[in-house]
Amino acid sequence: MSTTSAAPGRPRDPEVDRRIARAALDVFGELGWAGFAMEVVAKRAGVGKASLYLRWSSKESLLSDALSTGLVRVSDVDTGTLHGDMVELATQILDLYSGPASRAALRVSLEAGAIPGVAENYEAIRKAQTRAARSIVRRGIARGELPAGTSVTLLLDTLVGGAMVHAMSTPPALAANAADHARQLVDFLMRAVTTP
Amino acid sequence: MSTTSAAPGRPRDPEVDRRIARAALDVFGELGWAGFAMEVVAKRAGVGKASLYLRWSSKESLLSDALSTGLVRVSDVDTGTLHGDMVELATQILDLYSGPASRAALRVSLEAGAIPGVAENYEAIRKAQTRAARSIVRRGIARGELPAGTSVTLLLDTLVGGAMVHAMSTPPALAANAADHARQLVDFLMRAVTTP
Repeated sequence: MSTTSAAPGRPRDPEVDRRIARAALDVFGELGWAGFAMEVVAKRAGVGKASLYLRWSSKESLLSDALSTGLVRVSDVDTGTLHGDMVELATQILDLYSGPASRAALRVSLEAGAIPGVAENYEAIRKAQTRAARSIVRRGIARGELPAGTSVTLLLDTLVGGAMVHAMSTPPALAANAADHARQLVDFLMRAVTTP
Repeated sequence: MSTTSAAPGRPRDPEVDRRIARAALDVFGELGWAGFAMEVVAKRAGVGKASLYLRWSSKESLLSDALSTGLVRVSDVDTGTLHGDMVELATQILDLYSGPASRAALRVSLEAGAIPGVAENYEAIRKAQTRAARSIVRRGIARGELPAGTSVTLLLDTLVGGAMVHAMSTPPALAANAADHARQLVDFLMRAVTTP
């Protein structure tokens, strides 16, 4: 984390931190890096510009932190079963790409590479996510829940991509409960990998 | 198509049209609508600004046309078999999201809604693509290549999303031949839908 430390004796309010992170993702999602400014984020979050500079020394570090906390956390997924892990991962992706941070999530894959200080951080997150997702499948193979020859790539591409496309193409009003749809998606893909 | 007609007696050069459409997608992909200008596209295409205005009366109609011709053409897919249609669709998506128009394809889903004249056109293309993709699967069911109860949504979400995520996450140097990978993806998903 690249946050600056709080002023001595004044504990930071976590609710304000969350509001700022949400506002940062909103502004980045809507306007992109070209329109991303401390002043715009402060206004959106309903806090003073000084509150932002107390926490972050630059807009690069603010966006880096907001992306680290606001995007999917595949690294934390370990329910003990392959089915549970895959449902949890698909649910997170469905929530992300149909929720308020969906535009930021799409935009970061387009623009992160060109933002100094964000590019390296985003690339590190992306690699950690990929490693974490691959180890979900590898643990499933080790526990005997999947055949040894299972294609980790095909299973994860279709799980992640299937959840992403579903969230992006389904109007919110029609979207089923994310966890229900995640289970249907996982059951569908499990037939592909467990059929000889 | 919203192109203006060519000047009388001077047939348009299709190679110039293609170069302009490619340049328009490049510029839109890199800079987004905020940086999209006739002058920038003309420079990138190596043509005079007058050549652009001879063809398009506004940057909205130029971008609309470039998107119509440059993105995936699911509507043309009908090889006679479900397997052939699915491989063709997956190949097109792999090519699109790993090729030069990939940034434009991602960006349009983020920004099209806010561009007057482009929003309606893009929404119409998107709906036509979805209808065409669904009819690939429905024809497969009608021909008895798929069980009647097949989930059209799950099959297409995982086919389209699986190809998209693969193209976006695989470095060009490591990417297998698109048609080969498309076949592996389709064979994988066919096991899911043909297993009782």
